[in-house]
Amino acid sequence: MSVDTPETDDIPAARLSDVQAGDTRERLLGARYGQALPEAPLPWNDVIGTMLAHRSVRAYLPRTLPDGTLETLVAAAQSASSSSNLQTWSVLSVTDPARKSRLAALSANQNAMREAPLLLVWLADLSRLQRLGDERGRAVDGLAYLEMVFVAIVDAALAAQNALVAAESLGLGGVYIGAMRNKPIEVAAELGLPSQVFAVFGLCIGYPDPARTSGVKPRLDQRVVLHREQYDVAAAQDYVADYDETLLSFQRDQAMAQVPWSERVLQRVGGAHSLSGRDRMRAALDALGFGLR
Amino acid sequence: MSVDTPETDDIPAARLSDVQAGDTRERLLGARYGQALPEAPLPWNDVIGTMLAHRSVRAYLPRTLPDGTLETLVAAAQSASSSSNLQTWSVLSVTDPARKSRLAALSANQNAMREAPLLLVWLADLSRLQRLGDERGRAVDGLAYLEMVFVAIVDAALAAQNALVAAESLGLGGVYIGAMRNKPIEVAAELGLPSQVFAVFGLCIGYPDPARTSGVKPRLDQRVVLHREQYDVAAAQDYVADYDETLLSFQRDQAMAQVPWSERVLQRVGGAHSLSGRDRMRAALDALGFGLR
Repeated sequence: MSVDTPETDDIPAARLSDVQAGDTRERLLGARYGQALPEAPLPWNDVIGTMLAHRSVRAYLPRTLPDGTLETLVAAAQSASSSSNLQTWSVLSVTDPARKSRLAALSANQNAMREAPLLLVWLADLSRLQRLGDERGRAVDGLAYLEMVFVAIVDAALAAQNALVAAESLGLGGVYIGAMRNKPIEVAAELGLPSQVFAVFGLCIGYPDPARTSGVKPRLDQRVVLHREQYDVAAAQDYVADYDETLLSFQRDQAMAQVPWSERVLQRVGGAHSLSGRDRMRAALDALGFGLR
Repeated sequence: MSVDTPETDDIPAARLSDVQAGDTRERLLGARYGQALPEAPLPWNDVIGTMLAHRSVRAYLPRTLPDGTLETLVAAAQSASSSSNLQTWSVLSVTDPARKSRLAALSANQNAMREAPLLLVWLADLSRLQRLGDERGRAVDGLAYLEMVFVAIVDAALAAQNALVAAESLGLGGVYIGAMRNKPIEVAAELGLPSQVFAVFGLCIGYPDPARTSGVKPRLDQRVVLHREQYDVAAAQDYVADYDETLLSFQRDQAMAQVPWSERVLQRVGGAHSLSGRDRMRAALDALGFGLR
């Protein structure tokens, strides 16, 4: 009862970033903010716990999804608000391994797209209203404005987030693939998109591989992103140094390369060269039939 | 025991659109899709029920929110994914009645903004990274591209949707205010926004007034918005006539003006005149310091 029993000190404490939806409010908030917790006791329930436990899942078990999962996710997505009920989005489900692999090759080769049994591609879709106008012989010149692209992007994002939270509530995991905007014209060709449709982002869905899960990533202090009554520039810039430390600690915890957040984001927005081809977004949308006036 | 008892026939049956989060899957899907239900028995739980029961709430009780509600909603919002963890969004909480009223006057006079105890304004915020670059003497020329506005809009929308679902799970209700984009420059002035920040939309939050609630609004058939492997133009245009009927029935049920969906959306996108000022979005963003290259 002594020799082979490891001492308590040798057993790593459960990492805070390993929290799950059912964990306490304090642990979930601790993982989300590092040490910089909001002060008040916050209203809480299981739905909120599910959201707080979100982490991007990039490694999946080779396991198909139960029947009806796709339809549930789409029902959740369609239950999100839509600007003026225009419903300017569509979603493409991709399960064919060869197609997922080709799309991955167009999207910074993200392996999650190959591993996930389901890839949802969220489309900003003005073509449905264009076709309706064409059928009825009605002008739809309003579609040609930048504003309508914003409407479609917001519609698609609200819908996708409902789908992801629904998936997570079912024990699934996912990750958004913004890199699907790296080569919008090639992606549109692969997916057979008509004019005035583009892929805003992908969303991989599957069962997380427990051997390769990541932790809950801390975010900026609430005092950085939350302003009251008017924007407060000074407050917004405080706490960034603290956040660098919090994120370095998370990276150590996750055995990731340690790069301060401030350095990583400055590299990411340094110039056209750092946008992975997306500096050509305007020209690409023009080629895909959007007006962008 | 007889005379004053109303006959059963005199009591209107509970309207399907009056469903609540805890109702059966069949009733919730029935309200969301009218008669055009997805066929398979779908995976389900309370989180999904909460989402399916969403309706936009525009009428509120004069009741303040419990302490900590704002912080819970922001924690849920920050738990949503962020593109490359850039966190290119901020949120402004507005509770001052005079400011809410001024903002309503700039946003098509939507009374929900005056009634709601809390107005959240979701900001596409590239200014934080600009300030970081300025502080460190680093080029952040990547911020000047249209793509970065898309990143910020998606970030803000994913965050906001988590906040709304969290609010709904707490028994609150809300409605998005896209009309906050009608006069972006005036809204930015009212909120003291720095350069490279704009209000993507508002989100009113409060306790729904049960005497003035709306029902769950049906959406387009799943076969219209969900495509498999490749976009199917023919399928996408089917079922629109059916949806007109479904929505007319909903409008009758809600004692709303009866206008077919196809007619309403065609009016909404007819031309620059139908965009409520948002046809000037590009010029407004230029004036607010965005590059849009």
